[in-house]
Amino acid sequence: MNPDEAMALAIAASERVRGTTSPNPPVGCVILDADGVLVGEGATKPPGGPHAEVVALAQAGERARGGTAFVTLEPCAHHGRTPPCTRALLDAGVARVVHAVADPNPKAAGGADVLRAAGVRVESGVLADDVERGPLRAWLHFARTGRPHVTWKYAASLDGRVAAADGTSRWISSEESRAEVHDFRTKVDAIMVGTGTVRADDPRLTARVPRRGQDVVRQPLRVVVGTSDLPPGARVLDDEAETLHLRTHDADVVLGALAARGVVDVLLEGGPTLAGAFAGARRIDRVLAYLAPKFLGAGPSALADAGVSTVTGAVALVVEQVSMCGPDVRISAVPAR
Amino acid sequence: MNPDEAMALAIAASERVRGTTSPNPPVGCVILDADGVLVGEGATKPPGGPHAEVVALAQAGERARGGTAFVTLEPCAHHGRTPPCTRALLDAGVARVVHAVADPNPKAAGGADVLRAAGVRVESGVLADDVERGPLRAWLHFARTGRPHVTWKYAASLDGRVAAADGTSRWISSEESRAEVHDFRTKVDAIMVGTGTVRADDPRLTARVPRRGQDVVRQPLRVVVGTSDLPPGARVLDDEAETLHLRTHDADVVLGALAARGVVDVLLEGGPTLAGAFAGARRIDRVLAYLAPKFLGAGPSALADAGVSTVTGAVALVVEQVSMCGPDVRISAVPAR
Ligand SMILES: NC(=O)c1ccc[n+]([C@@H]2O[C@H](COP(=O)([O-])OP(=O)(O)OC[C@H]3O[C@@H](n4cnc5c(N)ncnc54)[C@H](OP(=O)(O)O)[C@@H]3O)[C@@H](O)[C@H]2O)c1
Ligand SMILES: NC(=O)c1ccc[n+]([C@@H]2O[C@H](COP(=O)([O-])OP(=O)(O)OC[C@H]3O[C@@H](n4cnc5c(N)ncnc54)[C@H](OP(=O)(O)O)[C@@H]3O)[C@@H](O)[C@H]2O)c1
Repeated sequence: MNPDEAMALAIAASERVRGTTSPNPPVGCVILDADGVLVGEGATKPPGGPHAEVVALAQAGERARGGTAFVTLEPCAHHGRTPPCTRALLDAGVARVVHAVADPNPKAAGGADVLRAAGVRVESGVLADDVERGPLRAWLHFARTGRPHVTWKYAASLDGRVAAADGTSRWISSEESRAEVHDFRTKVDAIMVGTGTVRADDPRLTARVPRRGQDVVRQPLRVVVGTSDLPPGARVLDDEAETLHLRTHDADVVLGALAARGVVDVLLEGGPTLAGAFAGARRIDRVLAYLAPKFLGAGPSALADAGVSTVTGAVALVVEQVSMCGPDVRISAVPAR
Repeated sequence: MNPDEAMALAIAASERVRGTTSPNPPVGCVILDADGVLVGEGATKPPGGPHAEVVALAQAGERARGGTAFVTLEPCAHHGRTPPCTRALLDAGVARVVHAVADPNPKAAGGADVLRAAGVRVESGVLADDVERGPLRAWLHFARTGRPHVTWKYAASLDGRVAAADGTSRWISSEESRAEVHDFRTKVDAIMVGTGTVRADDPRLTARVPRRGQDVVRQPLRVVVGTSDLPPGARVLDDEAETLHLRTHDADVVLGALAARGVVDVLLEGGPTLAGAFAGARRIDRVLAYLAPKFLGAGPSALADAGVSTVTGAVALVVEQVSMCGPDVRISAVPAR
C-alpha cells in the first residue's frame, strides 16, 4: 500500500467518527507493518476515550514494530485526558510516522519533534488538502480562531427564494438534497435556526437517516437563536435531542456560548434573518446552497440584511465546488481571503 | 475523416454564421470526396444568399462527384428564394448525404425522399443532439412552435439579487461572464429588456466584442417592452443598432411582433418584472444564470411575480448544464416537460 492509499484509508476512518469527537479532532490512523501491509486502523473515540493512534496500534499489536503510522493530524505530545500519542507510537516501536497536517494547537504541537528526537522518521503533508478541507476542517478552524466553524446550508429556488409567497417551503429541494442534509446533520455538533424558522416551520432539527455503517442516530445539539419565547409544544422542545435557546442577536455571543459547550462544527439552517446576521458579522465559514431548478418569483430570499448596501460592498466568496445533487445544483463557497 | 468528424466540422461552420441567417436556419455543410478527403465546407449565407450545401459544393467543384455531403439539417426540397438544395446535390453527383436532424418544416421537408428516389444513399441522426441543442436550437423551436426562442440571461449574487439595495448592479458578475454575454449577443437576432431596465441602467444593448473570426460586429435588434415612453437621450435610441419599442405587457404579443420581423432567437436581458411576465406565460425556453460568489442580502431578486403563490406551483425546470465562468457559476436550465 502506498502512502496516498494509506492516508486515504486514514481519512475514511476519520470521516466515520466526524461529529462524535468534539472538542477533540476526528483523526484517523492507519498502521502498515515493515513490509507495507495494513495491520491496524483506527479513529478518535468520543471524549475521554483513546485517540486514533492508540486504537490503530492496539489493533496492530506487535506487527507495528518497524512499521509506519499514517495519521491525518500530527500526533499530540501532551498529556491531556489521555497520555500523549507520541508515547504510544514510541512504545510500539513504529519506525516512521506520516501525518497530513501539523497541529496548530500550541499545547499539543511538537509531536513531530518529539518523535524525531527519538529516532523516528517523520514526514508531513500527504493529502494535507483533503484533510484540511475535509474531516479536520471545522476543528482546524476552531483551533485557529477559537470559534466553532459555521456552515450555512440553504435550499432555494433558482431565483433565490427559500419559501413561496404563501410561506410554504416544503419541499423546495429534491429528496436527494434533503437526504444529504440529514446525513450532514449526523456529522456536526449543533444545528442552529432562528426563532422565526421555529415559528414558521416547527422543524424537528434531528438527523433522521442512520449514518452509513452506524445503527444509532446520534443527535446534534439543537440551537435556537432569538429573543422571543419558543411556542409551547414546538417540536424542538421534545426529547429527541437537547435544545439550547440563546436569547441574543449577536453572532459572536452565540458562537462563544457554543464554544464553551465544546461545539466545534455548526450547521446553520436558519432563515434569511439569522443567516443575514451571521453573513454581516462575517461568521459564515462555508455556504452550502442547494438550488432547485424551479422559479418562484415571490417569497423570502435566502439572505436578508447583511449590512450591504451597494454592489462593491458585497460579502465576497469563492466557489469551492459545484456539483449536482439529484436534480438540484449544489454550490459550496467559502469567504474570499 | 469519419462521419462524426465531418459533422463536427459542419457544426462548427454553422456556429460561425449563427445570428446572421434568420429567418433561415444557420446550417453547416461539409463535402468529402469519394476517398473521404475534405473538399468543401460552407454555411448558410444571409437571407437571399445561397444555402450551406450550395456554398460547400461550389468549393468542392468536380471533386464532389461520388462523394458525401454532411449537413446539419436535412437538405430542402422546395424552391424558395433559392433553388432546392436537393437539386444542387444531385447536379453535383454526390453519392451519399448524411444529415444530423430532419427538417420539421412541412414546406421544406421531403429532401431525404427526393434524394433517395434519385439513387442517393441518405443517412440521418449523426450528432443530432449536438445540433438540436446547439446551432439549430432556436430555429427548430421556431419551426415547431412559430415563436422565437427566448433565452433569459441574468447575473445575480448567490442569494439571487440582480442589484444592490442602492440600485447599483455594476458589476455583479465577473469580467469573464460579461465577455461571454457580449459574445452571445453577436449570435442572436434580438436583445430584449423592459422599460424599467432602460430607466435604471440606460444600457447600450450592443455587442461590443467582435466575434471570433469576424471583423464586423453585427448588431442584433434592440427591443424594449413596456407602455411608458423611453427617456429622451436613452442610449438604446442611438444609432448603434435598430431599436423596437413594443408598448405591451403581453409576452405573446411581443413574440408575435418579433416573429413577424423574422426574429428567431431572442436574448431576454430584462429585469425581474419582464422576466417574471415571460416566466409566468411559460415563454422562457432557456435560462442562463450567472451566479457570482457574493452575498448582497438586499436588492431586487432576479425574478418578480410569475404568478406562483405556493411551492408546488413553481415553474419547473431541468438543469441542462452547470459550469464555471471565471469565478462565477453558470447554470443553464430549460422548462421541464
Ligand atoms: N429553504 C430553507 O433552506 C429555509 C431554512 C430555514 C428557514 N426557511 C424559511 O425562512 C422563513 C423564516 O425566516 P426568518 O428570517 O424569520 O427565520 P430565522 O432567521 O431562522 O429567524 C429569525 C429570528 O432570528 C432572531 N435573530 C437572531 N439574530 C438576529 C439578528 N441579528 N437580527 C434580527 N433577528 C435575529 C430573531 O428572533 P427574535 O425576534 O425572537 O429575537 C428573528 O426573528 C420561513 O419561511 C422558513 O420556511 C427556509
Ligand atoms: N443583473 C441583471 O442581470 C439585470 C438585468 C436587467 C436589469 N437588472 C436590474 O433590474 C432592475 C430593473 O428591474 P425592472 O423589473 O424594472 O426591469 P424590466 O423588467 O426590464 O422592466 C420593467 C418594465 O417592463 C414593462 N413590462 C413588460 N411586461 C410587463 C408585465 N407583464 N407586467 C408588468 N410590466 C411589464 C413595464 O413597463 P411599463 O411600466 O413601461 O409598462 C415594467 O415597468 C434594475 O435594478 C436593473 O439594474 C439586472
